[in-house]
Amino acid sequence: MAVAVDHRIGRDEIIWAFGPDLEPVLEVEPGTTVTFETNDCFTGQITSEDDLVTEVDFERVNSATGPVAVNGAEPGDSLVAEILDVRPIEVGFACLIPGFGQLIDQVAAPVTRLFRVEDGWVQMNEHVRFPARPMVGVVGVATDGETVGNGLAGRHGGNLDDHLHGRGARMYFPVRQPGGMFAVGDMHAAMGDGEICFTGVEIAGEVDIRFDLLKGKQGTWPVTELADRWVPHATADDYDDALRLVSEEAARLLVDEWGFSMEDAFIFLSVACDAGVAQACKPAPGFGTIARFAIPKIEATPRPFRS
Amino acid sequence: MAVAVDHRIGRDEIIWAFGPDLEPVLEVEPGTTVTFETNDCFTGQITSEDDLVTEVDFERVNSATGPVAVNGAEPGDSLVAEILDVRPIEVGFACLIPGFGQLIDQVAAPVTRLFRVEDGWVQMNEHVRFPARPMVGVVGVATDGETVGNGLAGRHGGNLDDHLHGRGARMYFPVRQPGGMFAVGDMHAAMGDGEICFTGVEIAGEVDIRFDLLKGKQGTWPVTELADRWVPHATADDYDDALRLVSEEAARLLVDEWGFSMEDAFIFLSVACDAGVAQACKPAPGFGTIARFAIPKIEATPRPFRS
Repeated sequence: MAVAVDHRIGRDEIIWAFGPDLEPVLEVEPGTTVTFETNDCFTGQITSEDDLVTEVDFERVNSATGPVAVNGAEPGDSLVAEILDVRPIEVGFACLIPGFGQLIDQVAAPVTRLFRVEDGWVQMNEHVRFPARPMVGVVGVATDGETVGNGLAGRHGGNLDDHLHGRGARMYFPVRQPGGMFAVGDMHAAMGDGEICFTGVEIAGEVDIRFDLLKGKQGTWPVTELADRWVPHATADDYDDALRLVSEEAARLLVDEWGFSMEDAFIFLSVACDAGVAQACKPAPGFGTIARFAIPKIEATPRPFRS
Repeated sequence: MAVAVDHRIGRDEIIWAFGPDLEPVLEVEPGTTVTFETNDCFTGQITSEDDLVTEVDFERVNSATGPVAVNGAEPGDSLVAEILDVRPIEVGFACLIPGFGQLIDQVAAPVTRLFRVEDGWVQMNEHVRFPARPMVGVVGVATDGETVGNGLAGRHGGNLDDHLHGRGARMYFPVRQPGGMFAVGDMHAAMGDGEICFTGVEIAGEVDIRFDLLKGKQGTWPVTELADRWVPHATADDYDDALRLVSEEAARLLVDEWGFSMEDAFIFLSVACDAGVAQACKPAPGFGTIARFAIPKIEATPRPFRS
């Protein structure tokens, strides 16, 4: 797909945290498309399988390119960011990190593996390849007060780490500051739900984003629209708590946008919608888990979450 | 699809728990197809929206029809149960249960809702319908010692409550007792991942199962084969713990069947396989959560988990 791009931001224009006082590197009108050059999660510190995560400078993790101010975005609105394309470079990596992940006690960490990405496939070694699912891990907007490092997720977005955030995803972020202040990074050529060793196929690349605004309406958490689903996200230390929070957000959407009673929203979520795991790496000292809820676009109802 | 059925078991031939000493109601050879008539989860106690879950006799919950002994099944084998068809009746129900589920504090429980199931759709009310996904909640075999009520899941199967257990699923259960002793029940016309109010669209019906044996090989948990995925399951009180257990089982499959190193299995699960939620209703006093891991059938590797 050829995308008519209006602007480009280089991979040296980056932030390491989302806070309330971000200064834009670009201001755009709604409808504008911007290409973001993004770094890999360790900002180029790993280039071979001899580069181990234990030698990485953790002050340089999960850079996000931007921020971009969308003119007219005010608190109370949603900043809409549609991913038109995600283009990884040809080589990515994954790491086993001492102390991180469900199986870490069973392996001799640290380990670094390189992957070749080509023609829509990820080659792990001579025996194993699997389909690429290029997506962005860190994506968000300015907060209403706190400053949240890009390793973490929150109501502003941040490290949502959902494999659904690839081409075609349309993300709605609650605007907390004028302009919204959008930034994106931490691309993965592929990532499994759960990301149980704490990395996907980490990789640099380019992302094309088209911006829009939804005036006067927002969720309390980021919500993603796909062709067939609405997908709110929420984060907490434990998955069970994250699922409770995202269940509340999903029910709120059904009540506010589709006119469900709370009882029917609760039942509908249980019988027709899919709870899911974006990020559930445990242990992951200092980091949380991220739950999502996929609500199908059901027939014969008002189209939700639009002005 | 017309299925040539060899036997039929009525919905009065039921068990309420999986233990070590089950007596078969039918003995079959591998390759045999059996139709199981199944009760709804409350054994017909709810027939209108005036029937509330608070009036249900909880001694009569989650009956499973059977058990069936498969001749030749010995400890160390896998009993293979392929779901050829799941046919719900035309009316099912869901309930909100006091004390159960992520949103229970926000509703006036108890509530019962009836659903009409027709032509592949579930009609919730005059405004809302969604696709049916008929599946079985309780499915398993005899245990190696303990007796586990059918509300719970375990290494024997039981209340796995995974919406993937519909037509075409091929389930591998670890045989612990001669004959295996297979039983199935707790049909849902639809159920969302997470089943966050603790019920799906609960319904009676019929299930066609074709039996087979895999001699001399078994997992430590039930494993499901779909057209494009292998899906182990595991259960624990909290989702994070269930995910650790199923990660171990998934890694064991990759190491034992595909020849992965444990390091590569850990990485592959993180970058290419999807952790998922079968059942994660919280609070659910006395009940656990069920995690799954979906391993894609990757190219150019030995076909796993076969003799």
